[in-house]
Amino acid sequence: MGVLGGTGPAGTALAARLASVGYDVIIGSRSAERAEEKAADIRKAWPALSLALRGGTNDDAAACDIIVVATPWDSAATTAREHGKALKGKVVISMANALVRVGHEFQPLVPPRGSVAAHVQAAVPGCRVVAAFHHLPAKELGNLSDSVESDVLICSDDSDALEVVSQMVRLIPGCRPLDSGELSNATAIEAFTAVLLQLNVRYKTRVAPHLNGIKGDPRA
Amino acid sequence: MGVLGGTGPAGTALAARLASVGYDVIIGSRSAERAEEKAADIRKAWPALSLALRGGTNDDAAACDIIVVATPWDSAATTAREHGKALKGKVVISMANALVRVGHEFQPLVPPRGSVAAHVQAAVPGCRVVAAFHHLPAKELGNLSDSVESDVLICSDDSDALEVVSQMVRLIPGCRPLDSGELSNATAIEAFTAVLLQLNVRYKTRVAPHLNGIKGDPRA
Repeated sequence: MGVLGGTGPAGTALAARLASVGYDVIIGSRSAERAEEKAADIRKAWPALSLALRGGTNDDAAACDIIVVATPWDSAATTAREHGKALKGKVVISMANALVRVGHEFQPLVPPRGSVAAHVQAAVPGCRVVAAFHHLPAKELGNLSDSVESDVLICSDDSDALEVVSQMVRLIPGCRPLDSGELSNATAIEAFTAVLLQLNVRYKTRVAPHLNGIKGDPRA
Repeated sequence: MGVLGGTGPAGTALAARLASVGYDVIIGSRSAERAEEKAADIRKAWPALSLALRGGTNDDAAACDIIVVATPWDSAATTAREHGKALKGKVVISMANALVRVGHEFQPLVPPRGSVAAHVQAAVPGCRVVAAFHHLPAKELGNLSDSVESDVLICSDDSDALEVVSQMVRLIPGCRPLDSGELSNATAIEAFTAVLLQLNVRYKTRVAPHLNGIKGDPRA
């Protein structure tokens, strides 16, 4: 799988974690060198793990079978459109949140089409966008020596694509995928990240959501 | 405390639960008779509990020291404004979510001012709006023989008012209040209810949120 704009904290952490559970991952970037540096840093940080993780261009990442858009939120749709031909028919994971800092708090913005994920879907109508991974704290996600205790809310208009990403989440120790319905729910899922960041600041921690009332993983 | 428009499922459940932890509660309604019927139903359902719970008009409810606005979301600001004089300076709890059914899913709307809570605050600038109780499943909340395992996300522009409601939440067995910052976060908290309803349908359950990573109740 490939991570477009994968050199930021969230993209790097997800790339590392997915490589650790067996995925062949290309961290993509406008600069292939910077991407390979990041990949090498991760490989060096976990010498005991055999990580199939390397850097490349965004073109290299877009050529993979599953693509994560990990750019800043305001580049997500543009970057997806630039690689629209390569993304056609593929599962494209949108993980960005449109947030703005107001004073000491973060507040959600309403991006075009109501969510970053819906904007990416509109930019590349032929791909199968899945919104996921918005709420995982990057530091915990990238710490491959420990599990990440979190539910992962996943939504998509394509139920097969949603299942592909659910399977991916199931492989991450501590994570539980939850089918959160159609892509329209990405609006609320993305916006909720602002609340989580607020709680992180308030309680000097990094929170992760869990939904009480769902036993185990009902789809496993 | 008083519950404006308190004869619906959420308002009734909250009134019952708060009466069970020691609050003196008036269920308010446009029809005092209907409100008293609801109150009598609750008292009859829990004969072993000594519930200080009665019905009254919305005027009666608005005259209390703490007021919950439990009308349907599209009446919340209007009802608050009608009782604006009585609400001035008081803690006013907004618990409604602006949702619309689209096919088999619920989707969040953007109400005037971005959230129901902010709309209520704008309708009665002199009151102290606190957004809370959006995510508690009404059935579990109203079942006084059991605890409600849930975090309660609370936000307000008035930190003293936020603390009043946090104290209220602390009294409910199983509930943990979380300071979720300023009232602007009500947008995301209200919208997130659509995701919870979606999960309820998908997994045939009633979910309640819990945030991993916060130990106990840091404000207690």
